[in-house]
Amino acid sequence: MKIALLCIGDELVTGQVVNSNSAFIASSLLDHGLRVSSHTVTGDSEKEIVDAVNFLAAGNDIVIATGGLGPTADDVTSAAVAKATGNPLEENRHALAHIRETVFRRNLLYSTSADDKQAFLPAGSAIIRNPVGTASGFYLAHHGCRLFFLPGVPAEMELMLHESVIPCIKEIYGGKNTIRTARFNIFGLSEPETDEMLSGIANHEKGLFLCICVIFPWIRITLRAESGSEEEADNLLRQASETVREQLGGWIFSEDEISMEEKIAELFTRSGLTLSLAESCTGGMIAERLTSVPGSSAWFLEGRVTYSNAAKIRQLGVPEELLERYGAVSCEVAEAMAVGIRVRSVSDLSIAVTGIAGPSGGSAGKPVGTVFISLADSEGCRTECFSFSGSREKIRVMSTWKGMDWLRRYLLNLHA
Amino acid sequence: MKIALLCIGDELVTGQVVNSNSAFIASSLLDHGLRVSSHTVTGDSEKEIVDAVNFLAAGNDIVIATGGLGPTADDVTSAAVAKATGNPLEENRHALAHIRETVFRRNLLYSTSADDKQAFLPAGSAIIRNPVGTASGFYLAHHGCRLFFLPGVPAEMELMLHESVIPCIKEIYGGKNTIRTARFNIFGLSEPETDEMLSGIANHEKGLFLCICVIFPWIRITLRAESGSEEEADNLLRQASETVREQLGGWIFSEDEISMEEKIAELFTRSGLTLSLAESCTGGMIAERLTSVPGSSAWFLEGRVTYSNAAKIRQLGVPEELLERYGAVSCEVAEAMAVGIRVRSVSDLSIAVTGIAGPSGGSAGKPVGTVFISLADSEGCRTECFSFSGSREKIRVMSTWKGMDWLRRYLLNLHA
Repeated sequence: MKIALLCIGDELVTGQVVNSNSAFIASSLLDHGLRVSSHTVTGDSEKEIVDAVNFLAAGNDIVIATGGLGPTADDVTSAAVAKATGNPLEENRHALAHIRETVFRRNLLYSTSADDKQAFLPAGSAIIRNPVGTASGFYLAHHGCRLFFLPGVPAEMELMLHESVIPCIKEIYGGKNTIRTARFNIFGLSEPETDEMLSGIANHEKGLFLCICVIFPWIRITLRAESGSEEEADNLLRQASETVREQLGGWIFSEDEISMEEKIAELFTRSGLTLSLAESCTGGMIAERLTSVPGSSAWFLEGRVTYSNAAKIRQLGVPEELLERYGAVSCEVAEAMAVGIRVRSVSDLSIAVTGIAGPSGGSAGKPVGTVFISLADSEGCRTECFSFSGSREKIRVMSTWKGMDWLRRYLLNLHA
Repeated sequence: MKIALLCIGDELVTGQVVNSNSAFIASSLLDHGLRVSSHTVTGDSEKEIVDAVNFLAAGNDIVIATGGLGPTADDVTSAAVAKATGNPLEENRHALAHIRETVFRRNLLYSTSADDKQAFLPAGSAIIRNPVGTASGFYLAHHGCRLFFLPGVPAEMELMLHESVIPCIKEIYGGKNTIRTARFNIFGLSEPETDEMLSGIANHEKGLFLCICVIFPWIRITLRAESGSEEEADNLLRQASETVREQLGGWIFSEDEISMEEKIAELFTRSGLTLSLAESCTGGMIAERLTSVPGSSAWFLEGRVTYSNAAKIRQLGVPEELLERYGAVSCEVAEAMAVGIRVRSVSDLSIAVTGIAGPSGGSAGKPVGTVFISLADSEGCRTECFSFSGSREKIRVMSTWKGMDWLRRYLLNLHA
């Protein structure tokens, strides 16, 4: 089965906006064992859309298109599809009812001319329900190809893809095979290291596939099991997942869609412990990440971004003598920062980070990328020194992740 | 002139990596007055690449392709192009010399079989110099279409596009016109408001083009002047830029590629003033953004993320009575936070943010999205209350930007 994607929009084709819809759709389909063979992007021009629809319909079994279904004059997808397929536009009463209901429910101002335009679809289309917006999607067959049209707004498109399009494609084509997927998120290993540790797990003949994807600074591993029997697919996935867990152990920070910060939030909530932070070179990035999780106020007491020496002395009680003798980027100062913030905030745990993010400020003994991270608890304080490379932003992100991963390992009693 | 882009790679077509190369190329070309009409993405399959090259060459004047030029077995672009164009692969001595020189210069291990593969290009190709990597790009004409092939690594592709491909295209087609562009970055207006304020500036007949692009939460405006005479292009752009500056005034936070945080850093450095921050719902996001600018330690003294009431009381001196009487999200507490951090850090200016980022924690009187921002200086403290909508992340980002924009306006003596 051949599947093509078509994304429609002037903002995409001129490069004003990066096209993330295609990657979302292709990767969601792959989770169901469906491989996309091409993506096409075209502008909001009726002629270009007509050409693209005709070309793609001729060479594919399925086309999933996004964009150009809105109420404004430059949204011409429906008209172009009408022309390409020879099915004239007609008012679709389901689409119209949906628009009126959505507008009513949200207390929006009703604009007859603009909104009703969205109810005109090529004759013979079946509508695809949009649970969040006014524009319905639509489906129709043309020359043996099945065409799905969705809005370009990611939040609408993503829901409609998962609720309607994928189940429909699976019903038509994928009925025979059961597909099961599992995700493992790891931090601290390189791509070749991961690849080597997982070698021999994939087995395409048996229907077991492995995908390693680097999303700096972490790596996402996807396992996919395909089989004619549900039990067999479950077994394949279970066994392979066990092997991945055995091989990677503590390098796995979470499974499925759970982020590092969500995992840490879960562990803090379960442990009943509290946290405080003292950040220098990361400038608040650890606090920002951890507080992005709803409910973090229950365990995250306080963070301080002590950029100047004066702030380190006054706000964290770092002895001036230490700063003079060892410098702000040193094991001694990192420890004094961690202990200082822990005492002042009366938290169970604390993390402190001090380093040289660059691009200037490095020296022969302490080059750019030198970062000290300290963790303090009731029993004392431990410090590690890291050498990161890359841009200022990369060094800050790596420092943030090393600090977060240390917290995770501490709460799980894993050695770093 | 019709231009198409072709991006080649399994990681792109399966959605494991978002395709940002297309947007970069399209937007770079637009800055030179060259509009792309379509993007295509295909996997690392020889047959699919052959089909795509033939189809795109038949319908376009120029095709710019990226990816699949590396040394590994799945890099098959050159072989596919050889097949599509009927120009068999042959060793290109310029490409070979480049590989050997790059490997030697970087002290890399030389792998004859893998690296030399990159020297085999379709007969009759002209090489495109790669200033940073081993893989040369190549150019050839086919059925009247000019084909450019570049590596997929963004750092290599971007340099080669600007150093070789764009000058070459301009020499062939655009030699007559001079193109000048200007960028204005604005915050605080909606897209329709911006559109209305700039109506009448674009004049396609005169060669003046305007592009408004929303990059949440700010908007980028690009002006492009095209003319047969250099002087005329400069004049067109200068006049239009003046009109944009007059119309948008203080809404413009920077021009060209300067970010909001870089602008603020510049203003602080120039003023000699210092800053401290007290953040609750933004969780350190303002500190993180401002310290992303190298050299920010000169004016950024300190930030505190006071998430708990206890931290607000102990670390900022917010009176317990205020918290009980008005709640942590209130004008009174925001002011006490701003004044508290300013006194404690001995800074000239301070900003405090407290709000309800959601998804829970809202009430009828203070719904999710209610955010108070206070600015304190030697003369006192002012507070504003905002109602933001959207996700937790959107509310945090909007609060961060409102706070940063307020700092910018303060330092420029502009009214908010």
